[in-house]
Amino acid sequence: MKHALSVTRSENFAAWYQEVISEAEMAEESGVRGCMVIRPWGYGIWERIQKLMDARIKAAGVDNCYFPLFIPLSYFAKEAEHVDGFAKEMAVVTHHRLIQDSKGGLVPDPEAKLEEPLIVRPTSETVIGQAMARWIQSWRDLPLLTNQWANVVRWEMRTRMFLRTSEFLWQEGHTAHADRDDAMAETLRALEMYRAHAEDELAMPVFAGEKPENERFPGAVATYSIEAMMQDGKALQAGTSHYLGTGFAEAAGIRYQDREGQQALCHTTSWGVSTRLIGGVIMTHGDDDGLRVPPAIAPHQVVILPMLRDDDGDEALLAYCEDLRRALAAQTALGEPIRVLLDKRAGKATQKRWGWVKKGVPLILEIGGRDAANGQVSALRRDRLYREDGKVNFAGQDRDAFLAAAAAELEDIQRSLYAEAKARRDASIHRGVTDMAGLEAYFAEDQKYPGWVELGWSRPTGAELETVVARLKALKLTMRNTPLDAAPVSGTCLFTGKPAVETIYVARAY
Amino acid sequence: MKHALSVTRSENFAAWYQEVISEAEMAEESGVRGCMVIRPWGYGIWERIQKLMDARIKAAGVDNCYFPLFIPLSYFAKEAEHVDGFAKEMAVVTHHRLIQDSKGGLVPDPEAKLEEPLIVRPTSETVIGQAMARWIQSWRDLPLLTNQWANVVRWEMRTRMFLRTSEFLWQEGHTAHADRDDAMAETLRALEMYRAHAEDELAMPVFAGEKPENERFPGAVATYSIEAMMQDGKALQAGTSHYLGTGFAEAAGIRYQDREGQQALCHTTSWGVSTRLIGGVIMTHGDDDGLRVPPAIAPHQVVILPMLRDDDGDEALLAYCEDLRRALAAQTALGEPIRVLLDKRAGKATQKRWGWVKKGVPLILEIGGRDAANGQVSALRRDRLYREDGKVNFAGQDRDAFLAAAAAELEDIQRSLYAEAKARRDASIHRGVTDMAGLEAYFAEDQKYPGWVELGWSRPTGAELETVVARLKALKLTMRNTPLDAAPVSGTCLFTGKPAVETIYVARAY
Repeated sequence: MKHALSVTRSENFAAWYQEVISEAEMAEESGVRGCMVIRPWGYGIWERIQKLMDARIKAAGVDNCYFPLFIPLSYFAKEAEHVDGFAKEMAVVTHHRLIQDSKGGLVPDPEAKLEEPLIVRPTSETVIGQAMARWIQSWRDLPLLTNQWANVVRWEMRTRMFLRTSEFLWQEGHTAHADRDDAMAETLRALEMYRAHAEDELAMPVFAGEKPENERFPGAVATYSIEAMMQDGKALQAGTSHYLGTGFAEAAGIRYQDREGQQALCHTTSWGVSTRLIGGVIMTHGDDDGLRVPPAIAPHQVVILPMLRDDDGDEALLAYCEDLRRALAAQTALGEPIRVLLDKRAGKATQKRWGWVKKGVPLILEIGGRDAANGQVSALRRDRLYREDGKVNFAGQDRDAFLAAAAAELEDIQRSLYAEAKARRDASIHRGVTDMAGLEAYFAEDQKYPGWVELGWSRPTGAELETVVARLKALKLTMRNTPLDAAPVSGTCLFTGKPAVETIYVARAY
Repeated sequence: MKHALSVTRSENFAAWYQEVISEAEMAEESGVRGCMVIRPWGYGIWERIQKLMDARIKAAGVDNCYFPLFIPLSYFAKEAEHVDGFAKEMAVVTHHRLIQDSKGGLVPDPEAKLEEPLIVRPTSETVIGQAMARWIQSWRDLPLLTNQWANVVRWEMRTRMFLRTSEFLWQEGHTAHADRDDAMAETLRALEMYRAHAEDELAMPVFAGEKPENERFPGAVATYSIEAMMQDGKALQAGTSHYLGTGFAEAAGIRYQDREGQQALCHTTSWGVSTRLIGGVIMTHGDDDGLRVPPAIAPHQVVILPMLRDDDGDEALLAYCEDLRRALAAQTALGEPIRVLLDKRAGKATQKRWGWVKKGVPLILEIGGRDAANGQVSALRRDRLYREDGKVNFAGQDRDAFLAAAAAELEDIQRSLYAEAKARRDASIHRGVTDMAGLEAYFAEDQKYPGWVELGWSRPTGAELETVVARLKALKLTMRNTPLDAAPVSGTCLFTGKPAVETIYVARAY
């Protein structure tokens, strides 16, 4: 069967991923190393993610702020002293002016060298910590709940669009609390917010759990994540939430006077999701015809394609389509007005159809002159693109009947995409592995990575954990997280031979 | 009369401006040179501006995208060749890694020096031009209408919060068209969009017009602006829109095949507004008690302050206030649900009241136990803060009557703030100056800048214009713009002695 893309997932998943991004016009290389241009369809999905996540953030009483792009080098020096594994791949600003050199070219002006280099923020704990130290005096100021939507830069040697780029867009929440319990509650609230967003809005099933010690954010006391399984069986860490203890508060001087008048250190948290989520959506829902966007995050949920003929009939056809558009836009699906586009551009309807198929619009309507005359619509669900006979699955329907069911249909697509992804993921969780040989055998099979292995382990730490990490690394495997909602475990840890105390997922990962 | 701020506008306008920002908790110095931290109240106003402007941008068919933060130096070298007055104060990234030096400090790693320095974008014409050249092939691809919301950096020696900071937030629209007429129409559409936003939403009267040749964006064929008068009589350029001709298209290779199959250069435009608008709002509407936020851009339009007594009565009082909050939130004002906050924080109601007065919330409700028992509210309009006797102007009202009128009251505040600002501005436009001595005398008076001078001028260019600019500069004056809707002029240009052809405003400016 012929598909809209030239590469299928099973042939070459990595090439397929790039082709979806290119054919759906989501993003492209910018010509600037490691940075991408996010095109309207990709950015429109990000705007939907922002809108839905921002509503969740605000509903939790968190205030949006904006902090500087640049962080003085000395702020990091303090961090580097305290933190093993401090990442040093960052963009460094050293000059503030260009001048013309003797050949007429432009060069950084040696006279305009900064006394202290500035770092383009890779994350904002340090600079936000300084602000918190100014803002917090007493217990009355706590909790302090802030968030920012921003671009950040981490110099990456190997980049992949949406998944790992030198510049990316994200939100970073930063909060300060009076004690551990309150900070931990916020850490887990953010984690649950991410789980709900991923599952209810991105239709992407995830495990919410704690990362093993070796995967903690540098300086964190505990790091939690949501982990999603991509269609190639690899894991994607799709969001993280950190309980930072009092370490960052100590470094930045975030103190408060408690109810008894004593000075105490705040307990802080941070949590973030990024444009990486879009990569997750592609690899969760894409198929061999391109992207499929869950209706909750689709910039257009319905596209109407009039089959224009450049003749006298076009006017009536467009009027019919505009009326349909208005009737759809007046309806509510998934708690918001339906987002519908009437695509009046010049060009063949079938060509335009495949453009929208590749972009993954949930519902496509093709309307011909006869449909308009007979009060019909011809509707295509992107998640049910082909009939059993291989033909494109358009369903001719009475206009009024279609309108009456349209909102429910979009909601059904949202549910169906989730159910499909969840069934696939759950079928790809392998249990019953009892030794390293079994683990190796499972992942070695056909040089493919069929899914994840769920194990009970003994939660080793320190040197014992390092040994486990090294053994897994030799197999190109990582531990993902220990899910919060797992059932109690029994048996033996295959890494340490000690009694297992919790469930953990092992997988190859992005 | 005592006011909430320690400095009045008439005593020291610049110090007053800083105090509003600080007391309204809008922004603060970040400790990073030239960069500010935008706090929740300031950022909340920016979010409102973004939401309203973004709706206008999308309604015009412009697509949001995202382009890289970094621009290779060579892109600017090309521009510098072509553009006189090319600004060179920019943040230059030269390294991509830090290492520990021999003393344990962090320094840029000499091994990680970039082959080509990267510039932190001061504006994105060059990098967006490259993308347009890839995206545009034929006349069918035109017009191409893009916008991005982003942070940009221009190294500023003297900074002032919101008005001139090294990093600021803005939107930049970039469009490509088949011909001059279409590009000019877009340039003027964006200008009109800015005018409408400023006047209808920021309640800030502006003149929309063309900048004189010497004030054009480097490389532009024509630059238009909206210009607002601040309460100290100075002008604020609050938004610009540029018709760029074919110069940028030529530099970036933005060409298309026309209907006849010929290759042609696109005509491009760019247009932007920034967080500077917030400075304009402060200096247009602030008074000696702090900010006054127009309801259209107020993060909270109504704040309800229950006068809690820490006793048994509090529960009924809070229930009454929550009911009031719900009733207000269910109403629509200025086309959106009313944004209302029930402020339950601990602390004295009067202290909290003055906090909200300084932040400029349009309507403040103070509710005591007796009000709750009697079905009353006590309402304070921020724009009518004091009675004639100097007392705070609370109006006790029946709850139902208040609710019935609340939306209209907010809309009246929006109108009143605009009317007040417009009356003040119009009264401060001085006409009838016929020679340089008169101009000098007007602006010299008391070392104050009472307003602007409206002149007819001959639209000099080249060297003749430069002479005019220099003479004005000696008086610390600038030409603002030539308003589009001015009446025909007669008489003589006081600068050149030639017949006047158009109206222009002369003012001191931010």
